[in-house]
Amino acid sequence: MSDLSIGVLTFSEWAHIGPDDPLVSPGLQAVVKCLCNGGGTRDELRDQVWRLDGETGLARFYYVLAQWSAAGLLGHTLVSEGEPLVTWVPLAPGAVFGLTPLKPDTAYVLSRFAYSRREGAQWVLESSRCAVQLRLHDGRGAQVLAQLSTPQTAQDLVAALSELGSETVETFSALLHQVGMLSEVTTDGRTLEETALPLATWEFHDLLFHSRSRVGRHANPVGSTYRFADEIEPLPAVKPSMSANPIPLNVSDLAALAETDMPLSRVLEARSSIREHGESPISIEQLGSFLYRVARVRQLIDTPYGQLSSRPYPGGGAIYELELYLLVQRCTDLSPGLYHYDPLHHQLEPLGAPTPDTEALLHDAMAATGWEPEQPPQVLILVSARFARVSWKYASMAYAVILKHVGVLVQTMYLVATAMGLAPCAIGAGDADRFAQAVGTEYEAETSVGEFLLGSRSEAEA
Amino acid sequence: MSDLSIGVLTFSEWAHIGPDDPLVSPGLQAVVKCLCNGGGTRDELRDQVWRLDGETGLARFYYVLAQWSAAGLLGHTLVSEGEPLVTWVPLAPGAVFGLTPLKPDTAYVLSRFAYSRREGAQWVLESSRCAVQLRLHDGRGAQVLAQLSTPQTAQDLVAALSELGSETVETFSALLHQVGMLSEVTTDGRTLEETALPLATWEFHDLLFHSRSRVGRHANPVGSTYRFADEIEPLPAVKPSMSANPIPLNVSDLAALAETDMPLSRVLEARSSIREHGESPISIEQLGSFLYRVARVRQLIDTPYGQLSSRPYPGGGAIYELELYLLVQRCTDLSPGLYHYDPLHHQLEPLGAPTPDTEALLHDAMAATGWEPEQPPQVLILVSARFARVSWKYASMAYAVILKHVGVLVQTMYLVATAMGLAPCAIGAGDADRFAQAVGTEYEAETSVGEFLLGSRSEAEA
Repeated sequence: MSDLSIGVLTFSEWAHIGPDDPLVSPGLQAVVKCLCNGGGTRDELRDQVWRLDGETGLARFYYVLAQWSAAGLLGHTLVSEGEPLVTWVPLAPGAVFGLTPLKPDTAYVLSRFAYSRREGAQWVLESSRCAVQLRLHDGRGAQVLAQLSTPQTAQDLVAALSELGSETVETFSALLHQVGMLSEVTTDGRTLEETALPLATWEFHDLLFHSRSRVGRHANPVGSTYRFADEIEPLPAVKPSMSANPIPLNVSDLAALAETDMPLSRVLEARSSIREHGESPISIEQLGSFLYRVARVRQLIDTPYGQLSSRPYPGGGAIYELELYLLVQRCTDLSPGLYHYDPLHHQLEPLGAPTPDTEALLHDAMAATGWEPEQPPQVLILVSARFARVSWKYASMAYAVILKHVGVLVQTMYLVATAMGLAPCAIGAGDADRFAQAVGTEYEAETSVGEFLLGSRSEAEA
Repeated sequence: MSDLSIGVLTFSEWAHIGPDDPLVSPGLQAVVKCLCNGGGTRDELRDQVWRLDGETGLARFYYVLAQWSAAGLLGHTLVSEGEPLVTWVPLAPGAVFGLTPLKPDTAYVLSRFAYSRREGAQWVLESSRCAVQLRLHDGRGAQVLAQLSTPQTAQDLVAALSELGSETVETFSALLHQVGMLSEVTTDGRTLEETALPLATWEFHDLLFHSRSRVGRHANPVGSTYRFADEIEPLPAVKPSMSANPIPLNVSDLAALAETDMPLSRVLEARSSIREHGESPISIEQLGSFLYRVARVRQLIDTPYGQLSSRPYPGGGAIYELELYLLVQRCTDLSPGLYHYDPLHHQLEPLGAPTPDTEALLHDAMAATGWEPEQPPQVLILVSARFARVSWKYASMAYAVILKHVGVLVQTMYLVATAMGLAPCAIGAGDADRFAQAVGTEYEAETSVGEFLLGSRSEAEA
């Protein structure tokens, strides 16, 4: 076999073994040093051990190597025609390096869950379906990937990429095959990834997100890392004022409500989505009470990591990144238009009369809920996130936490609206780009992540 | 200029203009037919109009072409050395085709939000930051992308990829530049995408998911499409039994609770996360009441699109994909171990005593909440999703809806636990692969999406 089959072992960067541990034999120290500095072939490492520890050190060397490999600490680099082609990096323990040649007379395509991109200064290939990253060292691997967008047998692939040399193509495709990044094409020209559960109904972005926002099958930190604490100021706990002419809202009498409000169990059992609103619109007093009970700032909390707050609905880390915008069609004493809720001063900040963008948002909301009445919904609540509030603190899980917060807020709105005799209805999706245009936010700084309809109840529902 | 600058126009596949509309002139009909069948250069199309409609048809042709372009209906293919290199496809109205050469003496890298993958039979490049897809027709573009994983000036790029020819490299990089897929490298070797808000704190998977699960900047359907209705049976509304020896749970007296339960407002204001549990453990009666009030099936509903159900917490489309697993450490009359909640028969299905996998899940939960007491949490509720329940019906937004459901469920659990005098605490993340091992599910069929701690209150909290 040529040098293609000779792996260059390197430590994955999450291996934390000190090269100067005095309990480690000189041979193993040399091995660790080598693995931390670019690596070496198995033979090179063995020769070092032999030279420094003698023959008796070899058994220990092979034992330790197997242990490191099982723990997911060793990368493997394939070298082709004298140049590194690809480095196999395990992202979790259990991944086993190997090559599995393609079956003859069988067509394969690249898995629809594989993707390549720049990460740091590397061109990497990953897949939502496996705990391995492949680092491509030049454009040769990328050419193989592009070719595998259409079904290819081993013979096809070698013929189409003859300039790369058959051994490079065969070895790289055997690596893709082994890690599960190739799918067999069945007789109908499709793959099991497209036709059979559990994979068929997964979309690319969904499985990618599930695999990377949860712990498992990747090596990224998950949780509160505060990784920008030294570089970037956290966003303020409360969004700076958006209007010079805020409209004050009335405050609920919480002491009275603590005694007289509807019992929780009755609210839970009575709650339902109501897709019509009453003739008499919701009043600004009702809107004020609703917002006060759901979303006001109860308290600001100063911490070494910036300001946090307390609000009625639960929020991870007391961060509270969600903002409420009200697109009002009909509400007593409130002109139709767009408003931002200032939860600290409990007031509405008018952002302007309806525009083509807000009309489009309203239209989307009606379409998404199958809204049938002639009159449009009285109030459309648009929920946005100031993303960096959360992503400044949490790694991997930031956006997942934000969507869970939307759910938490939605249920709080459902229950308070039900207790107040109002008509609530959550919406499944909305247009984030349109929101940015309507409100004048930067897409990546703050855009919509949830929508909710609110209004008075019709006679029939009341 | 060579043929590199000659675009081949094609209709994007979401253009729905009938080629045989009799009101359309013969020249425009020919143009539409051509655009729907592989396209032609601007000059070829103009010549057809000239031949069929005469000179008077040209103004109309150019007008219509501009309209189609503004509506995002026209793709553009760059041809290099006689072979199609890349097709620019707008994913939303407003994207304007063009080429913007790299600035001299300026280094660029590929945007960290760009990614390439197989979609159908095409190798495509997209980015969470732009509403354009680039379809690469062979491995040449892929080589340029791989090269752009390290900083490159225009000169570097041409030199490194001399075998592709300078015109191919310059034109392709000018297209990448124009659509916003390149980032300038600043003097510290980094890009604004890595150092400045709003982009710095976004992770790749988060922005990708936000841009693809919401409406906007992509051309995929969003909402209930039932796209697998003819191919795949929907999953059952209730997960099939997981144990032959279920443990029945007690039922809450909802009629009494409707009068005597704690008023909603008091529950909302009293709710908080409690990270310690009492000496006396939660009882199986409390556990039964809690699950009954939160998550039981109230009703099964047969529809033409399969069975749905009604449960106390709201769920989009009445689909209810979430499953509750209880990892019990201490609960009266219940052995430590893992249980599945059967919400239809309101019973617990024992899945076995603690294992190394369940111990790891418990350890993760304690680490994630900063759990300090010596005794571990009494009950860890693991929330999983049977994903295909949702993705069978909803396009683009399936996983986002699932996470919103987790939030809805979490707030319901918080409120019911608070009203019952129990100690609740939500958890931000967990290990989905470990869950699959612990419960014996297939990762892509059903894995964990949420976690929650529940127990009795300590003396201090009660």
